[in-house]
This record gives sequence, structure tokens and C-alpha cells, in this order.
Amino acid sequence: MTAVTELLSGYSAYFNNELNNFFPLPQGAEKKVVEAMRYSVMNGGKRLRPFLVAETAGLFGISRAQSLRTAVALEMLHSYSLVHDDLPAMDNDDLRRGKPTCHRQFDEATAILAGDGLLTYAFEILSDEKTFPDADIRCRLVNMLGNAAGAFNGMISGQMLDLYAEKIPCPKNPEQLIKNIEEMKTGRLIRFACEAGAVLGRAAAREFSALTEYARKIGVAFQIADDILDVEGDEKLMGKALQKDKNQGKVTFVTVYGLENAKKIAEELINSAKNILEIFGSKAGSLKDLADYVINRKN
Amino acid sequence: MTAVTELLSGYSAYFNNELNNFFPLPQGAEKKVVEAMRYSVMNGGKRLRPFLVAETAGLFGISRAQSLRTAVALEMLHSYSLVHDDLPAMDNDDLRRGKPTCHRQFDEATAILAGDGLLTYAFEILSDEKTFPDADIRCRLVNMLGNAAGAFNGMISGQMLDLYAEKIPCPKNPEQLIKNIEEMKTGRLIRFACEAGAVLGRAAAREFSALTEYARKIGVAFQIADDILDVEGDEKLMGKALQKDKNQGKVTFVTVYGLENAKKIAEELINSAKNILEIFGSKAGSLKDLADYVINRKN
Repeated sequence: MTAVTELLSGYSAYFNNELNNFFPLPQGAEKKVVEAMRYSVMNGGKRLRPFLVAETAGLFGISRAQSLRTAVALEMLHSYSLVHDDLPAMDNDDLRRGKPTCHRQFDEATAILAGDGLLTYAFEILSDEKTFPDADIRCRLVNMLGNAAGAFNGMISGQMLDLYAEKIPCPKNPEQLIKNIEEMKTGRLIRFACEAGAVLGRAAAREFSALTEYARKIGVAFQIADDILDVEGDEKLMGKALQKDKNQGKVTFVTVYGLENAKKIAEELINSAKNILEIFGSKAGSLKDLADYVINRKN
Repeated sequence: MTAVTELLSGYSAYFNNELNNFFPLPQGAEKKVVEAMRYSVMNGGKRLRPFLVAETAGLFGISRAQSLRTAVALEMLHSYSLVHDDLPAMDNDDLRRGKPTCHRQFDEATAILAGDGLLTYAFEILSDEKTFPDADIRCRLVNMLGNAAGAFNGMISGQMLDLYAEKIPCPKNPEQLIKNIEEMKTGRLIRFACEAGAVLGRAAAREFSALTEYARKIGVAFQIADDILDVEGDEKLMGKALQKDKNQGKVTFVTVYGLENAKKIAEELINSAKNILEIFGSKAGSLKDLADYVINRKN
């Protein structure tokens, strides 16, 4: 393990332990939906987005405990997007990180409601005064997350583009289309993670912009790495079926630019992302290492 | 038309006109999801919940324009719940107010994402500073809505109870079960409407409690009226297939208490709701009339 994967897995242990407290089990029929929510969140994810919240907030002296609830809200929202993405009407996936997807483990109605529940819970958590003392900051986080996850140039429009991209008559500018997909689907939540850290830390405008730019670049690189892993990854390590993009005729960085060029683009993005962090000096060491990890990971 | 239905339809015209501004159409593939969102919200609903927000806020001198965005957010959330409720894996309905349901008009993936988009948009709207100047109030509204709509004793747990109630081995206390269902499924959003008006108006504690109690009572009465309309309503006026509860073996107020008793219970609830409003004097006239309307409506 490198230093950053050790740091990430340490944070992940801390985070998972805290996460457990967010799922008190009710006793009635609604118990099932809460179980499905917990099942979907406690699924061995890497906790990359929560870690980004903690590390960026940490640049400004905000402790892990102080950024925890913001990180939890983001992970709830990320998990909802996976639960709904996996549904039969969407990507129709049976496995997620080697385990049955939510609708396979429970049923489709429960999975729809569990996703809805996680999305709703994200905003309830974020707006609670336990999250941060200052209501202005909490409102800003809620508003940013709603925008990042929403249908107007947010994650949901990215999902629409992803679902229907192959049905659009040959896009005139595939690079632009792909950039849109990547930016919105994976990128918007990664960007929220870094910007939320900046908001919690009351970052100055240029610090905020630097974190936005860093996030954009690692977000696109993250998606390119996913596209590459879909081609040359290990199904066991990935915990899901691969070669899906090719089989579904999806337009990805790899299908458009080819494997080697896609790798080169991802590396350039990562180098540029690390340069942007120079303004934070040595404090940003683990965020720089994390940028490298984004394209070197095996799952 | 009685005075209150005239007031309601006047508000509804104002509301629908304003609502249009909330759906700027993007140009890409995501256009479809925004169209599906708009289709689902602009569907000729009565706007009862937005009207309740406006009327309760009005008790405290808050204008319609000042409570508008809160009312819009609530209607977005209500509409999402209908879109997801209608899905094949849930109630599998083809018609809603006489028009094809969202997944019939578009497709299932788009309907899932449109519902997600409306839910997300509700929180984005509510947290925006245009909604109310004071961030404390906005945070409280977001938190209350998340709780009312959520999986922990909120609307989502009500939907789970509703979906799985018939599969639970004969409940020991059907009255309790039904009260839970009604309170959570329909009631929580009606309660939010009235409490949101109170929060916008910085209501004193006893005024807040009075509005909570009023909302609880009209919420249960509203659900009983729905159960009655399912038995003796006019399919044309309702714009959907009726007799569904009986055919699906659902446990409702009518199946448990019988039609006449159910009507009596609803009337008692409405009388009691009107009494609670006495503390507001003559200002609460239309809220009292609205209570009557809840059980006398034909759709």
C-alpha cells in the first residue's frame, strides 16, 4: 500500500464506523427500506468522495469530525445514484462490488424507494444544525449539492446523456459530448466534494477556484480510468462485469481516442491537477497523491 | 363554485403561471428529462399543498409572492412522489388525472430520473436565498421537508407500508396500521405545507402547534376522502381507474370501517380541525372552508 491508499483506508474505517449510526432500524414494514438503504451505503465502497471532503476541508484546519456529516450526506447521495443506475430500466446490473445490487437483494419497488430515501436523507442531514453551526454555510451546501446532483447540467442530465448518447444521431463533436458526460456524471459529485470542503473552510475566492479546477481535472481523469478499467481491469477486483461499454456500443474516452491516447490524456489531467494545488504548499500533499491514485487504482 | 374553490382555483392559476419559469429547457439529450419533469408537474393538479403553504403563511402577513418558492418546492416533491408511485414496479398506473403517467408518456428510465430530478430540485429551490432572506429559516424548511418526505417515519415509510401492508400477516391493530399509513403517506406533506407556512411566518409555539394539529386532521380526512372516492367517485372526474383498493385487497379506512363510518370519522376530523383554528380568529376563514372542501371534493 502506498501512503495515500493507507490514508484513504484509514479514513474509510473511521467513516464506516460513524456511518452505522445514521441507520437506526424502525420496527414496522418500513424497516425493509431502511435495511435496503443501509445495505446500499455499507457496501465496501472506497469512500473517495467523503475522503475528498475531509481532505479539502482539512486544508483550512477543519477536522474530520467537523466535516463528517457533509461527507456522509454526499455518500448517501452517491449511493442513491448507484441504486437507481443499477435498476432494470436503467443499466440493469446484477452485481455491484461483488454483491447483489439493491433490487436483486430486495426487490425493485424497495430499491426505488431506498434510492429516494437516500437522496432525501442527504439533504436532511446536510441542513441539520449538527452539520455546521452557521446556517448560511449549510444552505450553501444544500444548494450546491442540489445543483450538482440535479437535472439542470448536473448528475441527472449526465445520466440522461449516458443513457441516450448512443441513440443521438452521430454527434458532430464527440469530444464535447464525452466531456459533457464525464463532467456531469462522475465529475459533478467529485467537484461538490472539493467545493464543500472549501465552503466548510471558508476558502478565499482563489482557493475555491483552485479546488474547483483540481476537482474538474481529477473527475474527468477518474472517468477515463473507469473506461480503461472496463477494458483491461480485473473482474474480480472490480466486483462487476466488464467490457460493458464495448458490448453496449457506448461512446467513451477509450472508444473515441483509443486506449493509449486515453491513458495519456488522463496522465496530463492528473499532472495539471497537482500543479493547481501548489498554492496550498505542503498541506496539499495527500490531495496530490490522491490525484495519482485516481488513475492508478485497480478498482 | 364555493368561495374556497374559487380562491383555490385563483391561486392555482397564479401558481401555474409562476411554475413555468422554473423549467428552462436545456438543449442536449437532458432536454428530455426536464420535459418529463415539467410534464409531471404541469399536469392540472389542484395545487392544494401550495395553497396551504400560502394560506398558512398568510395568517402571519406573508404574501403569496414571499411564500411562492416554498410552495413550488413542495409541489416538485409531491410530483416526484406521484411519478415514482406510478412506476410499473410500484402501483403500475397508466393514467394520472386523465393523462398518460410519466413512464407511459416518456419511458421508464426517464420517469425514474425525472422523479429524482424533481426531488433534488425541491431542495435546491428551498435552499436558495431567493426563497427567504434568513438562512436559518431556509435550513429549517429543508430539514423539515427532508424529514417529512424521508424513510424514517416520513412519506417513504408510508409508501413501504402501503406497498407491503397486505403482505404483513394480519396486523393485530389495523386501526393503528391504517393511521400510520395515512399519517405518513398523504399526511406528512400536508403537515409540511402548514408547518412551512408557520415557519415562514415565525409563528409562536402555540400557533405552530395549532397548525400542526389542523394539518394532521385534514391530512387523515383527505386520505379517507380518497378512499371513499375510490369506491363511489366518478372515474371521469378523478381521471384515473377506481375500485383499485378493493381489487388489490388493500387495507383502507373504507375496507376496515365501512363506507358510512369512514364518512363519519372524516367529518369529525374536519370539525375538530376547524375548531383548532379559532385562535387565529377571522383570518383563518379560508383555511376552515378548505377543511370542508377536503372531504366534499369530487376529485
